[in-house]
Amino acid sequence: MRIRLRLSVLVLVACVLVAIGACQRAPGSGQEVSLVIIGGTVVTVDPSHHVFSPGAVAVNGRDIVAVGRADDIGRRFTGAETIDASGQVVLPGLVNTHGHAPMVLYRGLADDLALMDWLQQYIFPAEARTVTPEFVRIGTRLAALEMIQSGTTTHTDMYYFEEEVARATREAGMRGVLGESILNFPTPDAKTPADGLARAEAFIKAFRGDDLIVPAVAPHAIYTVDEQWLRASRALADKYGVPVILHISETEDEVRTSLEKHHARPAEYLEAIGFWGPRTIAAHGVWLSDAEIAILKRHNVALSHNPESNMKLASGTAPIVKCLNAGVLVALGTDGAASNNDLDMFEAMRQAAFLHKLQTMDPRALPAGVALEMATIRGATALGLDREIGSLEVGKRADIITVSMKGARQTPMYNPVSHLVYVSKGDDVQNTIVNGRVLMRDRKVTTLDEARVLADARAMAERVRAAVKK
Amino acid sequence: MRIRLRLSVLVLVACVLVAIGACQRAPGSGQEVSLVIIGGTVVTVDPSHHVFSPGAVAVNGRDIVAVGRADDIGRRFTGAETIDASGQVVLPGLVNTHGHAPMVLYRGLADDLALMDWLQQYIFPAEARTVTPEFVRIGTRLAALEMIQSGTTTHTDMYYFEEEVARATREAGMRGVLGESILNFPTPDAKTPADGLARAEAFIKAFRGDDLIVPAVAPHAIYTVDEQWLRASRALADKYGVPVILHISETEDEVRTSLEKHHARPAEYLEAIGFWGPRTIAAHGVWLSDAEIAILKRHNVALSHNPESNMKLASGTAPIVKCLNAGVLVALGTDGAASNNDLDMFEAMRQAAFLHKLQTMDPRALPAGVALEMATIRGATALGLDREIGSLEVGKRADIITVSMKGARQTPMYNPVSHLVYVSKGDDVQNTIVNGRVLMRDRKVTTLDEARVLADARAMAERVRAAVKK
Repeated sequence: MRIRLRLSVLVLVACVLVAIGACQRAPGSGQEVSLVIIGGTVVTVDPSHHVFSPGAVAVNGRDIVAVGRADDIGRRFTGAETIDASGQVVLPGLVNTHGHAPMVLYRGLADDLALMDWLQQYIFPAEARTVTPEFVRIGTRLAALEMIQSGTTTHTDMYYFEEEVARATREAGMRGVLGESILNFPTPDAKTPADGLARAEAFIKAFRGDDLIVPAVAPHAIYTVDEQWLRASRALADKYGVPVILHISETEDEVRTSLEKHHARPAEYLEAIGFWGPRTIAAHGVWLSDAEIAILKRHNVALSHNPESNMKLASGTAPIVKCLNAGVLVALGTDGAASNNDLDMFEAMRQAAFLHKLQTMDPRALPAGVALEMATIRGATALGLDREIGSLEVGKRADIITVSMKGARQTPMYNPVSHLVYVSKGDDVQNTIVNGRVLMRDRKVTTLDEARVLADARAMAERVRAAVKK
Repeated sequence: MRIRLRLSVLVLVACVLVAIGACQRAPGSGQEVSLVIIGGTVVTVDPSHHVFSPGAVAVNGRDIVAVGRADDIGRRFTGAETIDASGQVVLPGLVNTHGHAPMVLYRGLADDLALMDWLQQYIFPAEARTVTPEFVRIGTRLAALEMIQSGTTTHTDMYYFEEEVARATREAGMRGVLGESILNFPTPDAKTPADGLARAEAFIKAFRGDDLIVPAVAPHAIYTVDEQWLRASRALADKYGVPVILHISETEDEVRTSLEKHHARPAEYLEAIGFWGPRTIAAHGVWLSDAEIAILKRHNVALSHNPESNMKLASGTAPIVKCLNAGVLVALGTDGAASNNDLDMFEAMRQAAFLHKLQTMDPRALPAGVALEMATIRGATALGLDREIGSLEVGKRADIITVSMKGARQTPMYNPVSHLVYVSKGDDVQNTIVNGRVLMRDRKVTTLDEARVLADARAMAERVRAAVKK
């Protein structure tokens, strides 16, 4: 009996010692992975809204292999590379669902003008005289630099020479859903809509299956693309199973013209001609009626809300709370920097939260958590990429950013989600990771030669200046 | 004749040589002054909207002694200290005309709630349990750190223990127009409105004539201060010739209550009781009627517009374009960080420009130049300080900031004023100068111990957290 007791005690002591040993095992003695981000507050944006503080994320190759408490992850994994995220928030990379990347080269070229004066005196002449493959390449590099610096890991684009946008995006290491534009009239890269469509098909063939680039078809809008080419765009997208991107109901004038020409509002007209289909991202939707909101919901069309552009251009206030209540998937975009004038998705989040509280006169409308989802998981879902990105979950691609909360502006911090939406700015981002690759480390972008990108952009700006000179 | 000619030639040659010598005189050989800021684009915000690029500003002691082209200033002045502002914009320090500095300690404590829930569940209990002289001191230091870092050189305040706000503001080297609050009910520093008024008088006596601090009287609002104490506040201000600060028409509820109680809208009621007078700054004015706008104009009352706070709290959209058209002086404020949630005046400028384009559905409304004036010279005028600050002009105090335009987000730069309003953020500020003293040099604040300020604020936040714990 006594011996048994002693044996039990010995076994117990041994077990305790083993347990203590496990606890005290030096960090770094676990499974080897490529990257461990540890020490920050991890805001996962997963379905259960998990937050780990201090938390950690383990990445191997391009994938997230673990998300959880810092002590647990630290014990289980050793990173070939480690990012100390203490004093920072770790979250999914931001997803910008609407933009025209090369137009950064026109940012601030002209402001505070009526839309037609702005277009006809500045943007159209500048585009006619300056948009070349070189312009698109230089502009996209500048945009990629700004986006990586401000925590955007996936961008959505519709412009010309989209293959240049794709190559520059891929070289910068970013993810992109990129649509070659189709318009009725001659564009910098296509004399006719048939040319545009052929270019779009060649673009899809060149980039489908790419690890970072999702090619798409981008019929510009109903007031610039006739029914024939809208139908052809949809058919092309369906043939290859790629997304469709277009502008819809950005201005009241667009609705008026649609009613005159088609006796239907834009979303109704597009339904009538059988345009709506899978994986469609409609940008703006400022003037959507209740019936049109129901149409978007019926066809699972995602709406890309661009609050800053809509305010600056005085387009109007999109009925976002109505859309959310109707179950429409709403994501966020910045629009091109010619009409915003930057690509900061933190500002898009804040502006969405502010604007819809004001519009509904309800400070509870569009709370911080919803704004954050619109810039992450809902953006990923809009682009058809929610199984790959948009939240920090095991098995997803490692598209991750870390945001400093150490400064005066972020002090004190009662709630990390509130701070991400209401006080964070793009420049607070410290590290940007896409597909497991660190594109920015401690604010130093590793994939672009910053000085060269800026110098090329400034040189190109001289050509723009000359093009609009009176 | 020949000799005369030779002599003339010699004199001519000598003159030319002297002239060349003057041109080539090494920079630094001119009149000695305390500080020269040289090489940037100088946006003066003077009545003629002068911009010098490259430009320079010479400062001696607390005063601006020259503003102009870099080559001219460089030749004429040598600075004991020099700031190289190349790649930056140099402009007047920003003037925040409404805030509650110590409330930075409540930033993000609670968001996205109905106003009464927010106040009754969070702000009121927190204030009742945590506002002490120490709280106000620690909070103001944190606010000053954030303001100096984001280019605000003058702030306007109404809170409790205002002498602590004044001391912390002065220690940080900032300028402040600071009002001791007067309310009907017991506050953290006064049991009765009579106590509050006595404290306000003592505060005025202690700080009048100060080089940086302008003491003021701050009756909170018509729904928190009875007629007797509104009249007494005005009398006190008149006795000492100091400014009056109050909230007006922030919410529709305030107007409703005023109509019920006084059978007049707020500005009408205040006119009826003879409250309006010189140097008065009324904050918000969201629900001003046309008749009330005329009242503000008639009494030269300045309106402090706080677009971010009004949006986040869903207070409404102030009729700013109407006010401007009626000739009312409109300046900008951030409001306290509990309702914004930061003190970035660049965001206030951008939000004002965006919001009123949207409200009027006119992209030409509130152009960048007007937003910039509202944050500088119009702010100074609102506070009665336009002869001292608000623009870069000879004889004014040297309240100056420099803002980087070198990054991807600011590239290219076609128009510096557009970039200041539409793409700049507080963190782009590199140098902040008040009264000729450099408070921040290359983003390092010289007048505050940053680590200590942040640590004190975090410790105080623990008390706040405990105070609102359910």
